Amino acid sequence: MESATVFYIEQNRLPFKFAIRRAEDYQACCIAIREMEIRGAGAIGAMAGFAMALACLNAPPETYGAFIRQAREDIEATRLTARNLFYATELVFKAGLRSPEAAVEKAQEIADRDASDSRKIGEYGNALIRDEARILTHCNAGWLAFVDYGTALSPIYMAHHSGKNIFVYADETRPRGQGARLTAWELNNEQVPHLIIPDNAGAFLMSQGKVDLVITGADRIAANGDVANKIGTLEKAIVANEYNVPFYIAAPTSTIDRDCPAGKDIIIEERSGEEVLYQEGLADDGTIQRIRVSSPGSHAFNPAFDVTPARLITGIITERGIIKPTESEIQQLMS
Amino acid sequence: MESATVFYIEQNRLPFKFAIRRAEDYQACCIAIREMEIRGAGAIGAMAGFAMALACLNAPPETYGAFIRQAREDIEATRLTARNLFYATELVFKAGLRSPEAAVEKAQEIADRDASDSRKIGEYGNALIRDEARILTHCNAGWLAFVDYGTALSPIYMAHHSGKNIFVYADETRPRGQGARLTAWELNNEQVPHLIIPDNAGAFLMSQGKVDLVITGADRIAANGDVANKIGTLEKAIVANEYNVPFYIAAPTSTIDRDCPAGKDIIIEERSGEEVLYQEGLADDGTIQRIRVSSPGSHAFNPAFDVTPARLITGIITERGIIKPTESEIQQLMS
Repeated sequence: MESATVFYIEQNRLPFKFAIRRAEDYQACCIAIREMEIRGAGAIGAMAGFAMALACLNAPPETYGAFIRQAREDIEATRLTARNLFYATELVFKAGLRSPEAAVEKAQEIADRDASDSRKIGEYGNALIRDEARILTHCNAGWLAFVDYGTALSPIYMAHHSGKNIFVYADETRPRGQGARLTAWELNNEQVPHLIIPDNAGAFLMSQGKVDLVITGADRIAANGDVANKIGTLEKAIVANEYNVPFYIAAPTSTIDRDCPAGKDIIIEERSGEEVLYQEGLADDGTIQRIRVSSPGSHAFNPAFDVTPARLITGIITERGIIKPTESEIQQLMS
Repeated sequence: MESATVFYIEQNRLPFKFAIRRAEDYQACCIAIREMEIRGAGAIGAMAGFAMALACLNAPPETYGAFIRQAREDIEATRLTARNLFYATELVFKAGLRSPEAAVEKAQEIADRDASDSRKIGEYGNALIRDEARILTHCNAGWLAFVDYGTALSPIYMAHHSGKNIFVYADETRPRGQGARLTAWELNNEQVPHLIIPDNAGAFLMSQGKVDLVITGADRIAANGDVANKIGTLEKAIVANEYNVPFYIAAPTSTIDRDCPAGKDIIIEERSGEEVLYQEGLADDGTIQRIRVSSPGSHAFNPAFDVTPARLITGIITERGIIKPTESEIQQLMS
């Protein structure tokens, strides 16, 4: 954030086009979050914090309170499942009640803390990864999804850079392909050996003993340890459980929602079926094209997240250490 | 098949373009099978039978035996996992040893039997479907995949046409999208209410109690009841088992390979990673475009099938009735 402008990487066209965009008011931030130009738990949280700060800076003095309250509502309506969004708007809103400057400071603090949390998650998570480990990850919880390092990918980067010979299977992650597009791009940039796999291939690999560990991120963690994350995470957790493959969630404590008792209380965002029916990508001529990949007469159902019950999760890797997904361990961690 | 020409529906560009193609020698049939212009267990079997018959018709009399033996090898090398292909080539080859005319007759008999088997599978399977049932299916085992009716979709068509109010979730089935493209197209043509879902959404739907029954086809069934089918089938079977959703395989007895003791003995075809990295579809201008949907620096792993162990399968719907997937029930069925 620079004066009253937020700069961010436009992720919708990555890895085909790299563009830095700017948002000069909170409404532009809302559009960027809703359209998923900016996505990933930590990145959404940081953006929401800056959006809230922009609202405080731009609020007319005579209607300051009403304006920032409305802004908070608007920002919180963009992505219903993302805990870090609500975490950030609440903290920055409260700071904003003191002054716009306090709001800006708080937003920057949240972004900075996200980066340092990710680094610590990487350090704790690295201890779980042995040399020669083959790791499966779903969606993108790398540095693009956070301010830096990421969550699920942070231990992978640490392991790789510490000289361990590791291999990553990146789930394609339909319908938006964050694995094939963003995780693969990050891994390629960091020179981590990897292959993209169709989401359908996870059970096949695990049945053949070719996956040692699954790590994914989280969008919201309930007080009982149930975890909402990208659609398909539940499927991987069930399959990992079937084959006794350890299944870890990597997330900062800011993703934990103590006001949400259990997974069933988490609201699941449903997105447009168009995301399933059409797909965007790079044409031979270098332009980005949108094509229909489904039968024209049909419609699609597109839930953005699912909830993995705590019993299927081996552990949660946080910036304060690795815990079991139980009410008591979460309470202890947060106190 | 008409004189020495096989006519078939080109499935690669369906549902965007409907084209009837012709193959005038067995080599053209091999290309059609390998490139998946013709696909689906029964359709591959029928095509392989006609290919073998074409080879017998076109064989030079002086090298008849050597020619048709080579043809059989070539045809069997196109799709390694498909049982019906080997079933058909063996029968037509043996008939061809008597005369080319006998080969043609046998190939036609296999195709006719495939259609009548599918109809009977529909009748047996229909008994499993109650009114208001919500059925999930993976890949395409409809009339496109067979000579007529199909296997997994045959009970669905029977239920629908008998007046039951049913609903189908069609798995997209990445990487080739047979669910989104072919199953959805068939269901739309038959006016069966349905939605396309990302392969990632199956567990979400089952966790919410929204799936009453899963039915898929099969590419090869081992003597112990293990089933090879399209990649991702294993994942659905594990998830269905987790939520106590009945999981049925629909396949004619010609898909059963009694010489294959167990699933681990089934060879799994691995296809080009390009199928994952790129996707074809309909552009706005009505042309079919191929676009890259993955990070350009990365590669993909693309197994075409997986093996579902018998213990995860509720029953196998065949043209001779519904059986449990056990060695003894399979033996009894085949005797």
